[in-house]
Amino acid sequence: MTTAIQKLLRPQSVAVIGASSDPAKTAGRPIAYLQKHGFGGRLFPVNPKIESVAGLKCYARISDLPEVPDVAILLLGAERSIQAVRELSELGVAAAIVLASGFAETGEEGQSRQEALIKAAGSMRLLGPNTIGLVNLTDGIVLSATGALEMEHLPQGNIGVVSQSGGILGSLLSRAGSKGIGLSKLISTSNEVDLEVADFIEELIDDEATQVIALYIETIRNPHQFRQAALKAAAKGKPIVAFKIGKSEAGALAAVSHTGALAGSDRMYEALFKHTGVIRAETFSDLLDIAMSLSSHKKLMGQRVAILTSTGGAGTLVSDSLGVVGFETPAPDQNTAKALRALQTGDEAVLDRNPIDVTLAGLQPDLLRAAIKILLLSPSYDALVIVVGSSSLAMPELMAGAIRDCLPLSDKPILAYISPHAPHVASLLVGSGVPSFASSESLAASLVAMHRVQQWSPQTSESQVVHKTLPMGLHGNLNEFDSKALFAQFGIPCTKEFKVKTAEEAREAASKLKGPVVLKILSSTIVHKSDVGGVAVGLDAQSIADRMANMVTEVSAKTRGAQDTPKEFLVQEMVHGGVELILGLHKDNLGSALLLGMGGVTAELLKDTSMRFLSPEHALSPEEALAMVKDLKTWPLLNGYRGRPLCDVPALVKAIVSFSQMAISLEGQLNEAEINPLFVMPLGQGVLAADGVVVLE
Amino acid sequence: MTTAIQKLLRPQSVAVIGASSDPAKTAGRPIAYLQKHGFGGRLFPVNPKIESVAGLKCYARISDLPEVPDVAILLLGAERSIQAVRELSELGVAAAIVLASGFAETGEEGQSRQEALIKAAGSMRLLGPNTIGLVNLTDGIVLSATGALEMEHLPQGNIGVVSQSGGILGSLLSRAGSKGIGLSKLISTSNEVDLEVADFIEELIDDEATQVIALYIETIRNPHQFRQAALKAAAKGKPIVAFKIGKSEAGALAAVSHTGALAGSDRMYEALFKHTGVIRAETFSDLLDIAMSLSSHKKLMGQRVAILTSTGGAGTLVSDSLGVVGFETPAPDQNTAKALRALQTGDEAVLDRNPIDVTLAGLQPDLLRAAIKILLLSPSYDALVIVVGSSSLAMPELMAGAIRDCLPLSDKPILAYISPHAPHVASLLVGSGVPSFASSESLAASLVAMHRVQQWSPQTSESQVVHKTLPMGLHGNLNEFDSKALFAQFGIPCTKEFKVKTAEEAREAASKLKGPVVLKILSSTIVHKSDVGGVAVGLDAQSIADRMANMVTEVSAKTRGAQDTPKEFLVQEMVHGGVELILGLHKDNLGSALLLGMGGVTAELLKDTSMRFLSPEHALSPEEALAMVKDLKTWPLLNGYRGRPLCDVPALVKAIVSFSQMAISLEGQLNEAEINPLFVMPLGQGVLAADGVVVLE
Repeated sequence: MTTAIQKLLRPQSVAVIGASSDPAKTAGRPIAYLQKHGFGGRLFPVNPKIESVAGLKCYARISDLPEVPDVAILLLGAERSIQAVRELSELGVAAAIVLASGFAETGEEGQSRQEALIKAAGSMRLLGPNTIGLVNLTDGIVLSATGALEMEHLPQGNIGVVSQSGGILGSLLSRAGSKGIGLSKLISTSNEVDLEVADFIEELIDDEATQVIALYIETIRNPHQFRQAALKAAAKGKPIVAFKIGKSEAGALAAVSHTGALAGSDRMYEALFKHTGVIRAETFSDLLDIAMSLSSHKKLMGQRVAILTSTGGAGTLVSDSLGVVGFETPAPDQNTAKALRALQTGDEAVLDRNPIDVTLAGLQPDLLRAAIKILLLSPSYDALVIVVGSSSLAMPELMAGAIRDCLPLSDKPILAYISPHAPHVASLLVGSGVPSFASSESLAASLVAMHRVQQWSPQTSESQVVHKTLPMGLHGNLNEFDSKALFAQFGIPCTKEFKVKTAEEAREAASKLKGPVVLKILSSTIVHKSDVGGVAVGLDAQSIADRMANMVTEVSAKTRGAQDTPKEFLVQEMVHGGVELILGLHKDNLGSALLLGMGGVTAELLKDTSMRFLSPEHALSPEEALAMVKDLKTWPLLNGYRGRPLCDVPALVKAIVSFSQMAISLEGQLNEAEINPLFVMPLGQGVLAADGVVVLE
Repeated sequence: MTTAIQKLLRPQSVAVIGASSDPAKTAGRPIAYLQKHGFGGRLFPVNPKIESVAGLKCYARISDLPEVPDVAILLLGAERSIQAVRELSELGVAAAIVLASGFAETGEEGQSRQEALIKAAGSMRLLGPNTIGLVNLTDGIVLSATGALEMEHLPQGNIGVVSQSGGILGSLLSRAGSKGIGLSKLISTSNEVDLEVADFIEELIDDEATQVIALYIETIRNPHQFRQAALKAAAKGKPIVAFKIGKSEAGALAAVSHTGALAGSDRMYEALFKHTGVIRAETFSDLLDIAMSLSSHKKLMGQRVAILTSTGGAGTLVSDSLGVVGFETPAPDQNTAKALRALQTGDEAVLDRNPIDVTLAGLQPDLLRAAIKILLLSPSYDALVIVVGSSSLAMPELMAGAIRDCLPLSDKPILAYISPHAPHVASLLVGSGVPSFASSESLAASLVAMHRVQQWSPQTSESQVVHKTLPMGLHGNLNEFDSKALFAQFGIPCTKEFKVKTAEEAREAASKLKGPVVLKILSSTIVHKSDVGGVAVGLDAQSIADRMANMVTEVSAKTRGAQDTPKEFLVQEMVHGGVELILGLHKDNLGSALLLGMGGVTAELLKDTSMRFLSPEHALSPEEALAMVKDLKTWPLLNGYRGRPLCDVPALVKAIVSFSQMAISLEGQLNEAEINPLFVMPLGQGVLAADGVVVLE
């Protein structure tokens, strides 16, 4: 059975509601474009004011339509769109595309209009509102008013695009066209009152014409469905590349613990993308460039790149950009160098280097072809970048021809950097299956993306999530003692401590613990205990009683009666010689993530933190937990930096896995959780949670 | 008198040595291009094998030339170029352009060839070798073989370009042409055996046709001349923008102190650029985009930007990129909002926001013009960005016309972001004086550059450099005691300490210092004293003798006889409660710089350091020293972060200024200098240099 989404993408019949007979007007464009780009189905303009549009009979009312069309595209204002949607739904139309703006994006009044629209649609599927429509390039069906459709030929190919902005759809369509990058489908979902990004990802996974999916994202409304769809795409070998708006959003979350303050919402997207194998395009231009590279059917198995250049400076530029992203451009191995030297034609060029500069020699096609072949088959390289210089402006076919001939020789990627402005050379190369770039940074980003796609594998942790039940009566903010008891329940070692109320109990606890101890107020409401004088270190059984009395006075003074006089205290072993970390849970509307950071001010001021999205099904695997630790810039501090002792990283990994088990096991009940500090002791001595916060539902 | 450089840029007569009659060959191009682009002077091909080139009589030998040409361009191989250069010099030619490669860039043999070339040139000036030549667009004189000159019309304008790569010259020429960005002169200096970047900067400063200077830099061979030229350009109001290769170079300097290891050579370029007011383009594409913006004659006095968009998504994109670089996009003030609302035409668009979305309303030119005027004159904004959407593909003049009309109304910059691929719209706008961008990141980088140009002022420190003489006999590595004595001589407070040899002296010193003391070995060869057990803290007069004996044993064991048995020690006051910084001198072939970093591992692992280039004339001003401190990400630690005490920043600033005075005063004698740690105590308690290294000439 054909679904409504399938009908939307490949309708046999289309009604255009509010069609204008003036193709210069927005309302005149869809029919003009449908005809221009050769729509083969039936087309029904609807407009009470006119008789015909572009040779087609125009119907006055929706009820006058001679058949139930598969799809309707609405070119009316907001209010009239709602009415039309109601009529179309009653008629039994499968799906409607609503172009009108003036809905939720404009404020409260628009929000009520949007609700009315959803209600009016009933069981009919909706694309939009505030969308510019969609373009099915595979089948030549354009259901859109974007001015980008003025182009003569649609750039057909295997990249499916979903954009949450209508304007961006036009931008991507015309930019792809200019670069010779072929697309399969292009859908603008915009306000997403019904159909949203994930619906179209799923559709594109099943679409044979689509091999790569490119997304322009402003927000993910349904993260659960998005995650499922993205994981499915990865499993099917259809990589997703996404550009997401919002790198600079303030994103300050009013969470009690530091975790929230550190993990901006944009980082959560980053974590979700990483978790699902989605490649993030850092710039808008990279979105198409990376998609183009991923659609080339070549595999990048390593990070060693040969650069063959017909122009010295640009070769250096490429090599610099590759270095910035951590790729290598090693000199040729002995055999490769020997083969290159054998090509030498008597001029002074030195071929056995990398970049390999064939500035003058490069004007001979045979030599060029031979050099490409040698580099492509060399075991020293995983990919080849060819730099096209200004001489190509006079001889566009020279380089393109040589590359094309060599392309079938290997599965290794060949990419081209075009140094001058030479769109015809670039299109020629892209058309032959060679991703071509005007920017060395985009080329480097594309190689990184190709490598990541080969490296990525889904989380397949063996770690069973142990479901525990919470002790009875626990809810809301837990104090330090109860928080740590919960951590301990999940297997995270905590400092030895006693809960005390009196000076006598404190003395007794200090004696039992031996060595110096820490005294803290115990409170479920004061988060920063030391800020109010509620922490004292280095005490013993002798000194603790006096210090306790002082603490009561100081805390009372500093909280100025906003808090009750402290009644409970913790007497705790004092930890020496470990490295302090923070381990916390971050939750927002996208889901849950683990956040690990170096302790103290480092995490806060220097943002040295590491994040992992939490799957609802699996705890973090030990491998992933270890990778998370190694992501920290300060990782060397745990790993014997400058003669420091090796820290107990295996124990830290275990604690991270346990913390993730806790987070998943108590999902829905756990609002916040943070261990701060988590001491990582020298190897063999484990870890110790020395303080923590938990907020339950 | 006309100088040789002036003749090179504006020759009356040109000899083309090794000219070919086949315009498809590299050696055939210069004459073909000179004629194509309308050279009005006299032209003399030289080639013994042919009679004529493109209708011009061809001379067999240089000695046959009918007159002494102003300039010769050489299209011969390396060896034959040397001979020709000798003959041209003997003839009295002012300057020669040598295209041949095969010189220093190819290795040792090439290096000797290069020396022969320099010798052969005598007093004749040389451009190159390995250059592609130069293009004077102002006067239509092209002395170059770049294939980019295939273009029909040279993009004339006010940007002068100097490139150290020949290939990049062609790239910039064709890219500028495609964007409608006008250039004045374009010179490729390449191997720079004689004329180099700074020579042409000086020439372009005096060139009336040039308003902005753009540089493609691989290395600066003469930093002193570069610095002078760049400062002169800034003083003359001709901003310089530079793209420099080498962001990813390993750049590890084998200096004894940490400073060297932290300050890669690329950072030194960064510091030199900052010092001289040179704007660094972070990407190659930004080089032309920023130059275009700076050449628009508009002034950006603040960081508040209004965005007017005809397409929602792209407006968000621009606003996101502006946010990333720290610019603001505030909502309109009351009056501005009121004026915008008055434009409302009844549709649902909400105009009193920022970005101001005129998706539908924007199709009316009057409304567009009115909105632009309101935003341009609004006191809430310092600049206006106009986003051009896909509708412009059908109506390119609509937006361009409205913007052009408003341009004379204000000195505030108007920039355009072109969302679809629409080079004709972009060229139209650029031609009208509106910098236009296909990338929101480049647009943001250009605004940052425009703002920096307005903000920049040269170092004008009042601080007199006090010239001191070094104590007699000091040279090579100084030990801690002598290093600190030198710091103290320049007014930097150091820890109280005594040099001791015997246990008795140590005891005495400890008594005098009161409080706990530090014992250190005193050595001019062991840099990391604590790594070999040569530091002990928290001692007193009782414990110091035993500890000293142990230290001798431990250090001897750890250095395994590589060092003499320690004979001298320092007994030093122990510093409590300060924040540890590192303050050091960094020197490389570009010059000297001061490096400030947070102490401990933060500076090393997290690269939280701040650098300032040292002028040979002035010490750092207190303002600059303070700015250097505030550049640190960990600056809040000195400034009362989370209830910490305010540190003595005024004393720190004074110490930095003093350190810079020392560096300049001892310039030439001082190879290395570093204070590590420099304790910054609570406000009012000053700073204390607790350890340090000095290496003298």
